[in-house]
This record gives sequence, structure tokens and C-alpha cells, in this order.
Amino acid sequence: FQDTKSDSVKKVDVQYTSKGFQFTSPDNKYRLQIGGRLQFRYAYPADQDPVSFDDFDVPKRNIFKINRARLKVGGFAHQPWLKYYFEYELGANRLLNFEVKAEKWEWLSFKFGQWKIEYTRERSISSGKQQMMERSIINRPFTLDRQQGVSMYGHLDKGGLADFNYHFSILTGNGRGARENDDEKLMYVGKVFWNFMGDGVAISGSDLVHQETPQASFALAGATNTSPYTRFSSSGGGELEGYEDGEAGQYKTDQWVFETAFQFKSFSWQSEYHRKRIIDNLSGDRDHLAGFYGQGGYVLNHEAASAGKPLYEIAARYAYYQPELSIPKNSEEEFSLAFNCFFNGHRNKLTTDVTYFDFDRASVNREASSWRFRVQYDFSF
Amino acid sequence: FQDTKSDSVKKVDVQYTSKGFQFTSPDNKYRLQIGGRLQFRYAYPADQDPVSFDDFDVPKRNIFKINRARLKVGGFAHQPWLKYYFEYELGANRLLNFEVKAEKWEWLSFKFGQWKIEYTRERSISSGKQQMMERSIINRPFTLDRQQGVSMYGHLDKGGLADFNYHFSILTGNGRGARENDDEKLMYVGKVFWNFMGDGVAISGSDLVHQETPQASFALAGATNTSPYTRFSSSGGGELEGYEDGEAGQYKTDQWVFETAFQFKSFSWQSEYHRKRIIDNLSGDRDHLAGFYGQGGYVLNHEAASAGKPLYEIAARYAYYQPELSIPKNSEEEFSLAFNCFFNGHRNKLTTDVTYFDFDRASVNREASSWRFRVQYDFSF
Amino acid sequence: FQDTKSDSVKKVDVQYTSKGFQFTSPDNKYRLQIGGRLQFRYAYPADQDPVSFDDFDVPKRNIFKINRARLKVGGFAHQPWLKYYFEYELGANRLLNFEVKAEKWEWLSFKFGQWKIEYTRERSISSGKQQMMERSIINRPFTLDRQQGVSMYGHLDKGGLADFNYHFSILTGNGRGARENDDEKLMYVGKVFWNFMGDGVAISGSDLVHQETPQASFALAGATNTSPYTRFSSSGGGELEGYEDGEAGQYKTDQWVFETAFQFKSFSWQSEYHRKRIIDNLSGDRDHLAGFYGQGGYVLNHEAASAGKPLYEIAARYAYYQPELSIPKNSEEEFSLAFNCFFNGHRNKLTTDVTYFDFDRASVNREASSWRFRVQYDFSF
Repeated sequence: FQDTKSDSVKKVDVQYTSKGFQFTSPDNKYRLQIGGRLQFRYAYPADQDPVSFDDFDVPKRNIFKINRARLKVGGFAHQPWLKYYFEYELGANRLLNFEVKAEKWEWLSFKFGQWKIEYTRERSISSGKQQMMERSIINRPFTLDRQQGVSMYGHLDKGGLADFNYHFSILTGNGRGARENDDEKLMYVGKVFWNFMGDGVAISGSDLVHQETPQASFALAGATNTSPYTRFSSSGGGELEGYEDGEAGQYKTDQWVFETAFQFKSFSWQSEYHRKRIIDNLSGDRDHLAGFYGQGGYVLNHEAASAGKPLYEIAARYAYYQPELSIPKNSEEEFSLAFNCFFNGHRNKLTTDVTYFDFDRASVNREASSWRFRVQYDFSF
Repeated sequence: FQDTKSDSVKKVDVQYTSKGFQFTSPDNKYRLQIGGRLQFRYAYPADQDPVSFDDFDVPKRNIFKINRARLKVGGFAHQPWLKYYFEYELGANRLLNFEVKAEKWEWLSFKFGQWKIEYTRERSISSGKQQMMERSIINRPFTLDRQQGVSMYGHLDKGGLADFNYHFSILTGNGRGARENDDEKLMYVGKVFWNFMGDGVAISGSDLVHQETPQASFALAGATNTSPYTRFSSSGGGELEGYEDGEAGQYKTDQWVFETAFQFKSFSWQSEYHRKRIIDNLSGDRDHLAGFYGQGGYVLNHEAASAGKPLYEIAARYAYYQPELSIPKNSEEEFSLAFNCFFNGHRNKLTTDVTYFDFDRASVNREASSWRFRVQYDFSF
Repeated sequence: FQDTKSDSVKKVDVQYTSKGFQFTSPDNKYRLQIGGRLQFRYAYPADQDPVSFDDFDVPKRNIFKINRARLKVGGFAHQPWLKYYFEYELGANRLLNFEVKAEKWEWLSFKFGQWKIEYTRERSISSGKQQMMERSIINRPFTLDRQQGVSMYGHLDKGGLADFNYHFSILTGNGRGARENDDEKLMYVGKVFWNFMGDGVAISGSDLVHQETPQASFALAGATNTSPYTRFSSSGGGELEGYEDGEAGQYKTDQWVFETAFQFKSFSWQSEYHRKRIIDNLSGDRDHLAGFYGQGGYVLNHEAASAGKPLYEIAARYAYYQPELSIPKNSEEEFSLAFNCFFNGHRNKLTTDVTYFDFDRASVNREASSWRFRVQYDFSF
């Protein structure tokens, strides 16, 4: 091992950036960024969204928890376009992101490792940059979450009328932390954004910069997978309600999503409409799921930003989930209202939300509803 | 993501401090400190304090282990008074500390997250700054250890006759790593220090600076909690001997501690007297526990510090624990003698100790005793 | 806590080195290096070497995985010769290395903590500096892997005819992550290198510097241990095929290895011959194992290095394992061919390999063979 002695005149550049402290070698070939994020949450009478009717009957509790504790390390090495990033959840001891990206050309880049596959806007937005306190009830059944594999992606005609982003990924389809694929079959995911106004809506909630020109995107994405799982989360692969633990290759899932996103003068909007078919290769059963959410928010005092004062935002969301399309009266609904106080953008913010859940199972003549209150503080360093 | 370009004249300040390498942004709003600590321990014939009579009969072993491997990251962000800190145990994969502190005023500060609740001096002193090699036998039954919640605290009349520190905390009372509270009932903890000589005895063992004026504090603390647990440790909630695994809200514990601390001219002293009542809400049983320890040490060659030479300290401790006050002849005693060699204060030190344990259960006509020998090296970077 | 204010003239030195970004205090008493490594691997139809006949019958799979994700922190503290190092595996949540080294004199150094005990060259070479994609089939039965304890070592007559390296270690012999020894008996390991040409062959695969003078070493090492284990890996202690989970002190293992290593003008060679005896202290059974591998490689275009172009290397290995010497017709063989593309030495390289396994159990009249194909990308930052 030998130290690479830097020229005595040229020095490592050290800066504080929105990704934490950043160190860049004098030849601009090596960069390291170290940052982190702590998220604290109080909830009453529960924190998790209800999933089954039993969840409406649990005892009331005062919940205070360290919801997220993330260490983030990124940068580039060997070439300025050869980027790396990893994110580790310290509370749950989970390696979340782990990726190397070759971003030499804007229209064609490559990525491999484990990351939140570009499929839905809601999931792609970091938990620290959300407009609402947490993702909607339809995230659970439809997200692909983090997967392992390779991706090619790019941005075409940036700022023009045919401004497109595309992502195409081949993945093992066994979820975060999987060490092996279950069989020879892989997961394939594609997504296309058409940025018909502006050059793409940032993958971040809330219009904190008071966009003077409207930004709007449509996006369409599709995925197919064969695995033992019917859903994915940060824990890895798992099963939706009513599905037994799967064997290798038991469940074939085909799904698509249509998204809209819009930001203009402190107002922001996003929506997703989902469809998903699950085929049980053992029993031959076919299920069809659908879901939708729309959410909007408005920053009440954008002019405070220039004075370095906190920004206040009010935001609301409606989400609707149908566990089985052929039984249309079975549904789950979420109504959420959130209030954000951005002391320093998403990097130092206080959020409070109130949510009303309404579940109907007309097929079994059962319904349930509940309220939930939460406060959250999000702190990045 | 945009880099926050620093002024070309003003640079990030980089220093080595007692908390490791430290980076501070030119506007003094962001700071990052990275440090760590490695602790190696040899023990024979066992390392853990005995807890039951069975522990006196285990086979003799040569134990060498990585006792602690800590990564420590702290600093401030957004404002110099908005501080953060996290500490991760790499050997056991545990997130230990995780806190954000608003310390704008000395007399009123706020903290939230997970940390060692200010309750006993012995537990509050970092395992790397202890005078003896490890905490006493009464730490196990009485410590509140780390909890999750919020705290307000401050320092009044600093250096005056009415120099007080206070801490008041509301916590979930389910121990380190708990993700949810078991019920609606919380833990409440209060502590007051009266620094009647000097401005408070540092929360650190040994008088390594040869205090020329005496420093002395009394402290009184109390706590109440309802949870499934009768004790807490770095592992989280657990049960003392003779208690079954608890259900939600099964055990109500009420406890208090009186402490003394004193440092003057290389001599240091500290003591704690504990009482604790455990009410089993299911059976109605009430138990009363008591314990005490006193420890003192003396640095033999304080004048060596100015020459950069190692400091040597000899220290001793006596601890006494009564598992049930109504059976006064049942007792556990610890006699410890330690010798410290401080190569560079607590940050690079070698400790060796010899301990004699003496357990009596007059109620069952049983007694046991044993010796233990240990060597430990503690290294901070 | 007080900051150690640095002299306003003298600054912390910051450099990018082959161990990552490096910070050194102005008094040269403190240094911190932060680096990491990500390793991605694709394999078909399996990644792990077969161990039993059952492993030849598993379903074919496309495997893509994050094989290694390492965070590496090292440097020195308090004195430039008082070095520390820890390495954490983020994917598997394992603290791998954890060591403090006193390297004041070249001929006599001390180390304690947990590390890959100096026993075999193959295992000592970091997984990121291997010539082949992975270690041979004989690594599993013979490696001592990581252990906890203390070591003394040094380098004598450097560059002379009697150029020797030696290592002598006393360890608990219970493997990585063990918190306690099983009994009073320890592991003892010794190794001697005779560097009869040059001053020692680097513990790193491939001759990437086109050595103009030949470098050659012989090495002999031996080890004895009593523990519940018959083999060790990154997971800790475990059992070879045919051995039941051991009790404290059940297995006594005595083993030795003879190694050769050579590098000259882009060619590199290394080999190991192993013997190991396992005594079951409960049944009295004695087993004798033997194994061998030899591997060589050649960098095809060493002149490209000066132009900053990638280097290409072709390498091959043959390995032979006899699970029981008294049944000589029972054997396991590995034939591997690898191709390396070094974009930036071992720190940014692509490796592909093809392996043929051939297992014979003449004693039960059974044999099996299989092919495996893999691609791996290794990226250090």
C-alpha cells in the first residue's frame, strides 16, 4: 500500500453540500460524501396502516420511535462519471442501497446493485423528501421496492417537447437482501416519463422553490416477475393478505402503473393508478388488484424562503385500493391531511398528519374505520 | 441535488479533536465529527458478573473478546445549537444512541431520540471513561439504560451556590431498540444535581486533571414506569431473576437513587444508594430491592501529565445488593480493586482488575463466592 | 469535551490514497482513512462451490447478488505506530476486522483483536485482491479464517538472503464473532516466510507492476486448536461434512501448510499444500485431510499501464482435496480459468471465470461433476 501523494499545490477540496460533507481529490477522479438522516415519529393509537380487520382492534398505544436512522455514503471513484452510493439503515441493521452507476452520457447510463427500482413515484421519493408523512395505503400491494440487478436509463431531448426519461431493468425479483434467486426466471421492469412541460418533475415531494414555469410529467411503467412473493418492502419479499408463503416460482405477477406529476408556483400534485395480476402457478388462481391515489399540496408562504424563514405547507391525499377487481364492493380507503413546517427544506422539517381509514368488505358484510394522529421530525446532516 | 458552493476564500475547517476528526462548514452551521472506540478484554475464569448460584459453577474459561467496537458520529446541522449524535455498536450490530438536541439556552435544552437516560452516574459515564473496568453489580437491577423519548434539561446558576442541573424525561419505557410502546403508559424520569462545590463533577471517572479546587455534587433521581420489563440493558428490556417474561403493562416499577460525587487533587469518589419497588399488576405481588456502591480512586503521579507520560491510578469499589428488602440476610457483595494506566487519558488506557463476589441466600441456607481477574485495553480514535 | 485547537498555521492534511480519503492531524499523531468496496456477482447455475453430492442436484438459477459491501476504517491514534483498523460487512451485518497494532519496530510488532490469522496466502489475500474470482475448494476445510486474540510478528534482514517474516498468534480459536471461548484451551498458530528472492511477495494476487526482479517466497505454517469446530469461515465456527455439531472442547485439530509464491515480469504463481488431523475427543476418532492447489496468471499487456489503459490477465487454477487420506480414491477436484480486466488495478476490475468440479467417492461408487460460469465486478472507493 502506497499513499497517492497529492501535488503540494493542489489540495483535496472539502465542502458541505446537501449530501453532507464532501471530499474531492485534486484530479477530480475521487469523491466521497458522508451524510445521514434521523427520523423520529410519535403516533397514536398506532403507526402502521391497517391491513386487515384485526388491525382495527389492537389496543391503543402511545408510540414514539426512531423510525429511520440512515447513514449515506456516495461519490465517485476512478472517473467522475463512475458513481457509487450506499445507504445503511442503522436502526434495523439493513443495507438498503448499494449501487454503482456509469453515467458517462446523459442519454445512456448503466446502474447495477440494489436500489428502489424506478417504478412508482411515491416509492422512488426518499422517505425524507415526502410531502405527506408516509406513503399511501396502495404502496404496500403495488411497490416493487428495492431489488437487485442491472438497469439502463437515460434522458432524451432534455427540455424539448419530446423530453423523455426511460429506465429498463433486469432484476432477480426476490427483494431487498436476497442472496440468491429462487429460479432461472427474472424480474423485468420498464418505465417511461414524458416531461411534456419543463424537463421533468423532481423525484421529491412539495414545490419548495416556487416554480415559475409549470413542470409536468406523465409516466407509464410495467413489470413482470416470477418469484415466491406477492409483495415487496424494505424487509424484502413477503405476501399480501390471503396468500400463503410461496415456493420457488409460485407466483407470477404482471403489473402496470400510470402516473401524473405537476408543480407550479408552490402547488404540487401527483397521482398513480395501478393494476396488478397475480397468478398462482400451483393452484392456477388468478387475482386482479387495482389502486389509485391523488395528492396535492400548497406552500402557504413561499416568499419566506428568501428571508431564511420556515416554509409552511398544507397537503392532502386520497387513496383507494381494491384487493380484488371482481368484487368491486370490497375496498380500502385512506383520507390524509398533512401539515409541513420546513425549517430548512426537507432536511430539517416537522410534519404532522391526520388520517382516516375506511375498509369495506361487502362480500362478507363487514366494515371498519379508524383515525390516526402522528407527528414526525426529520433531520438530515 | 446541487452542491452548496462555499466561498472560495472561506474553507471547511478540519481539526482533530477528542471526538475524532471534525469538519465544520465555513458558515459554522454544519459540523461532523467521526470517531470510534475499540475495547478488548481478557477475563478468567469468566467475564460477566454472577447473577445466580449457577453462575458460580460454570467451567473455567480463558476469555478474550472484542468487548466494544463503537462508531460515533456527531456534530450539528442547520444551526450550531441543533446538535446530533449517534453511536453504533459494530460487534453486536446495535444502534445505541440516536439523538437530536436543541441547546440554544444553557438553562433550557431539549433532546429527543434514544440515549442513556440521566438517572445514575455509573450508567451515564461512558464505558470508555470508567474508573473501574466495568459497572458494579447493582447496575443490572437498577439502571434504566437507554430509552426512547424526549427530555428537557438545563444548568442553573452555573458556578454559584445554587448551581443545579436538572433533567426531566418522558419515555416509552420499553428499552433500547423498541419499535413500539406496549400500551398507553409511559416512563417518567427526573434528576436533579446540586453542585454545592464547583460547577458539577464531570460525567467521567477518575480525576485526571488534578482539580485544584474541590468539585462536589449531590444528586437525586426518581423514575416510574409500566412495561413488560423489570430491568433494562443494552440488549433492551428484560427480566430480573425470579420474574417471568412480562405481558404488556404487567410490571410497574417505582425507583429512586441518591448519589454523591467528588473530585479533588487526583482523588475521586462516587457513590449511589438505590431503592426500587416492582409491582406485578397480574399477581399483585410487591417486591422491594435496594443497593449501594461506593468507589474511590487516586492518581499516583499527576505530575507526569505535563511531561506527556502515562498516569497511574489505583481504585477500589464496594457494592452491596439486596434482592428483597424483607429478607435482609439475602445479599450479594462485590469487592473490586482496579489499576489503570492512562497512556493518553481515557482514550488510550490499560486497566486490570480483581474482583471478589460473595453471595448469600440465608433464606435457603446457601452461599457462594468467587474470584475474577481481567485485563482490558481501551482505544479511542 | 474540549476541542484540541490546532495551530492556525498547521492544518489537517487531507489526501486521497489507495485506502480512501485520509485525514492526518498536524502533529502526525492521528490519522483516519475511510474507504469501502462493493462487489457484485452474477453466477449460473449456482455460486457456491459444491460441498456434497446433493449440491450437484440443485435447480439451476440465475444468481445476481451483492456479494460484498465493505466499510473500511483505519489509521493511527496517539502515536504514528499505534495503528487501528476495522472492516464491517454491511450486507451481512458482520464486524470482520477489528485490530490494534503496535508497529514501533519492523522486527517486532504486536497486534490484538480479530483478523484473518496469518496462516494461508489464499485466505490472507483480501477478497478484493484475488487473482481468481474466489478462493479454491480447499479453503473451506483448511482455513483458520478470522480469530480473536493476540499476535507478535516481524520482518528480519529485509531484502537480504535471510529475509524472513514471522507471525506467532495465540487465539481463542472459536472463530469470528465469538464472544467467549468454550474452555481453557486456546489456538496457537505460527507462520514463517523465507523470502529467498526479493523482500517478500505481496499478499495480493497478480503481478500488476511487472516486477523486473524476481520475487519468491516459501512459507511454512502450523496450527493447533481445541474447540467445538472442525472448520471456520466468515460466519464463524462450523463443521465439515460428516461432523456433528461439537461440544466444548470436542475437536482437536492439528494442521500445517507449505506455500510457494513467485512474481516476475507479469507472471505470478502461488501454491499451497495442506494437511490436517481432526481428533474427536468424545469418540476417539482420528481423521486425516489433505489438499493442494496451484495457480498461475499472466498479464497480457503490461505496457498499457503507463498509458493508463486497462490491463488484461489470464489465470488458471487446479485444486485437489482428499477428505480422508486413508481412502485415497475419494477426492474433489476444481479446474478454474479466469480472465481479469483491471480498469484501475484491483480497485476497479471485472473478472469472469469458468470452473469445472469433479467429485469422486470411490468408497461408495459415486461421482459427480458440473460446470459453473460467473462474472464479477469489484469496485473500491
